[in-house]
Amino acid sequence: MARPTIDFWFSIGSTYTYLTVMRIGALAEAEGVEVVWRPFSVRTLMIEQNNIPFRDKPIKTAYMRRDIQRRGERHGLPVTGLVPYPLTQWDKVNTAAVLAAEEGWIAPLAIEIYRRWFQLGQEPGVEPHWSEALIAIGKDPDQVDARIATPEAEARYHAATDEARQRGLFGSPSFLVGEELFWGDDRLEDAIAWAKHGTLAGR
Amino acid sequence: MARPTIDFWFSIGSTYTYLTVMRIGALAEAEGVEVVWRPFSVRTLMIEQNNIPFRDKPIKTAYMRRDIQRRGERHGLPVTGLVPYPLTQWDKVNTAAVLAAEEGWIAPLAIEIYRRWFQLGQEPGVEPHWSEALIAIGKDPDQVDARIATPEAEARYHAATDEARQRGLFGSPSFLVGEELFWGDDRLEDAIAWAKHGTLAGR
Repeated sequence: MARPTIDFWFSIGSTYTYLTVMRIGALAEAEGVEVVWRPFSVRTLMIEQNNIPFRDKPIKTAYMRRDIQRRGERHGLPVTGLVPYPLTQWDKVNTAAVLAAEEGWIAPLAIEIYRRWFQLGQEPGVEPHWSEALIAIGKDPDQVDARIATPEAEARYHAATDEARQRGLFGSPSFLVGEELFWGDDRLEDAIAWAKHGTLAGR
Repeated sequence: MARPTIDFWFSIGSTYTYLTVMRIGALAEAEGVEVVWRPFSVRTLMIEQNNIPFRDKPIKTAYMRRDIQRRGERHGLPVTGLVPYPLTQWDKVNTAAVLAAEEGWIAPLAIEIYRRWFQLGQEPGVEPHWSEALIAIGKDPDQVDARIATPEAEARYHAATDEARQRGLFGSPSFLVGEELFWGDDRLEDAIAWAKHGTLAGR
């Protein structure tokens, strides 16, 4: 029998996705669940859906920052006081993430970028942090930059986002177990339970 | 030493608040935590803050309905397929809730209204459900209706909402432990842990 599988849909640039990127690998392994990392542009879908959770909402944004800090403590994940937000290099980073997912180096890339962003305050996709992050996971920055600047890379990024739209996604992180959608780092355990048992009853 | 205390801020009419209203009493008692029920108008604050999570967002709304159904299963709380939303009698119901909180009958009122709303599909504040709910908890509907129609009742409802605004609230359910804010039914356990230990580390 196939192992239970979760499709982990996310964008680098979503804040709560920090918690998921850092903990999904170990948690899924302990639970015997496969994870397929699926980067896309949640920003594109959120604009289409008029879903603006933070940009014009300072009270909710302040809460989000504090909530992530507290949840980070709970999971042993530090959060620096200076997390740049929102990102200026969103499309560049997530185009690279789609390439990395196709080639099998998305988990180390996402972990390295989020570690630097949330623990060191280094904005994703901005130099010199971008090149340093790529070098840290064994990639050549010039090669990666050249490859994500092609129409083919852009087309694959858009295709990933089109698929996310078609699957009914609206936020990051999201987890799909078959047709069953779970949204938010705080639903990761639910998604794993669903993948294993097909219900949350008794969890 | 005083028992750890949580201020439970909520509006009847918030959907996720169903889960909290139905489970906070037993959970807090098991954990040795006091709960102060604080109804207010989250709708007023959300409009002020341009925070519209569902009304114009059909994809997110469909997810919310499914998510509450699943979370309900997890907690043994049934959800009928026909939950009227949004409410037409918001202010009436929450004005009564503020009165009930002042007089010590808010928990039975909220539980009875949410039970009928989510388990039987009966919209809060609408007849004959409104009178039936009040009678079920031992209140005279005519007396309650007369008392919430006064300027004094309206002023207390507005004062509760003013206090919520001043405390930095933006959603329902919310939990305040001193100055520490937790938002969402999925943060109830975090709020209880914070009330007892002042941290989420190691939870």
